[in-house]
Amino acid sequence: MLVFLKLGGSLITDKTKPYTARLDIIERIAKEIEEILEEGRDIRILVGHGGGSFPHVSAKKYETHKGFGREDSKSGFCMVQNDASKLNRIVVETFLKVGLKAVSIQPSAGALAESDKITKWDIQNIEILLREGIIPVVYGDVCLDIKKGCCIISTEEIFKYLAEKLKPEKVVLAGKSMVYTKDPFKFKDAEPIEEINRETIEKIESSLGGSDGYDVTGGMLSKVKLALEIAKYCKEVEIISGLEKGNIKKSLLGERVGTLVRW
Amino acid sequence: MLVFLKLGGSLITDKTKPYTARLDIIERIAKEIEEILEEGRDIRILVGHGGGSFPHVSAKKYETHKGFGREDSKSGFCMVQNDASKLNRIVVETFLKVGLKAVSIQPSAGALAESDKITKWDIQNIEILLREGIIPVVYGDVCLDIKKGCCIISTEEIFKYLAEKLKPEKVVLAGKSMVYTKDPFKFKDAEPIEEINRETIEKIESSLGGSDGYDVTGGMLSKVKLALEIAKYCKEVEIISGLEKGNIKKSLLGERVGTLVRW
Repeated sequence: MLVFLKLGGSLITDKTKPYTARLDIIERIAKEIEEILEEGRDIRILVGHGGGSFPHVSAKKYETHKGFGREDSKSGFCMVQNDASKLNRIVVETFLKVGLKAVSIQPSAGALAESDKITKWDIQNIEILLREGIIPVVYGDVCLDIKKGCCIISTEEIFKYLAEKLKPEKVVLAGKSMVYTKDPFKFKDAEPIEEINRETIEKIESSLGGSDGYDVTGGMLSKVKLALEIAKYCKEVEIISGLEKGNIKKSLLGERVGTLVRW
Repeated sequence: MLVFLKLGGSLITDKTKPYTARLDIIERIAKEIEEILEEGRDIRILVGHGGGSFPHVSAKKYETHKGFGREDSKSGFCMVQNDASKLNRIVVETFLKVGLKAVSIQPSAGALAESDKITKWDIQNIEILLREGIIPVVYGDVCLDIKKGCCIISTEEIFKYLAEKLKPEKVVLAGKSMVYTKDPFKFKDAEPIEEINRETIEKIESSLGGSDGYDVTGGMLSKVKLALEIAKYCKEVEIISGLEKGNIKKSLLGERVGTLVRW
């Protein structure tokens, strides 16, 4: 069984402090993955992670998502790549320390985009690594863009591309929470949403998109929409809280702990 | 004009101390490159660097060059990739600090080898970066190998593949010295060799291969042989000392400071 696991940037970094990884959380998650593999489960895992407070400052400063429009855009492109890669080194190194077999796959080394969408990427090495039982670790990164010079590709955009090619059984998106009707960290009357599909998303849209909605990296609504797009290519996507111990392990093994997103 | 510049692992790391980069040297070299670009020269530069004391210990421990033969080969493969990438982060970060536009290109993310030779690698992104005036920074890395599982690809092997496709004007290999008849750090009567080609290499072979010869990462003789192979695809390869201030700048601009290798 092939599963994709995303570790959100807000989960594995301290968003309030630039270049600060939440090593405790990364290590705990690595151990949850290691437990699954130790149990001899027939599971191949691809991990992707966001950049959080690592590339956030430089990406904003240089407006890297807008392309090569400014005089300093190309310098910015290089700096954002460096910042994104720095966190990736920490994630992979932590995985290795726990005993996992994991290897970086730098998206910007091979992927090419057109207007923010990956249109070309030779992923043969990712396929071989998965076959060999090694965890490929991709990450939100800069990308060359044939329309505007460069862009930012999120882990979700990467997963969408990879899911279409590799057809995973399940995609787990671990952030700070599953989907609620309102931001659960602010509102006590926030209700958890069990399931979302292309028909029910409209109802949810009004509540999530409203002023009580989420507002982290583009907001929970856009996360749900991206999850729905990924869900086109696999049985189910689950948006879960990676803060709760054991959730990631449970979700990877098929237990329901978050919001199910089905096409 | 397109040039390739290799920074040898023994030049940019302290070979006697694991995981110790020679930051002073990397920064000085970055400044030499920056000076060339500041002067508005029509030059596009691709940089490659060795791993030196970063992946050396893990690569030797796990015999990564032998493939996936051992039980711990795959763990070793992951560790060597991590170690190689660590030095690459330091190199790229130092380049950025000096004001260069430079971006990592992780070879193992895209290249595929067969019996230690790269046989497949989509290098479109490298071509675009060069066109945009951004320095792609490749490095000696692990590589998936369709014959033996994995292998180690040196910067020279990478340059050979890239030189055939990109046809650089010149390739500069900066190490601790140009080519001498004997190891110049040990023998006072060592004589510098000005030029080598496929006909004169035989004469040199006996002296370099002898007991007074070099013995750093496979030795100077194998470096010269690889340089000769690269020389098939460009006008000239120059093996220089990167320890001497100004040498890299001079060599990149066409001045002779080392040993010329022509096919």
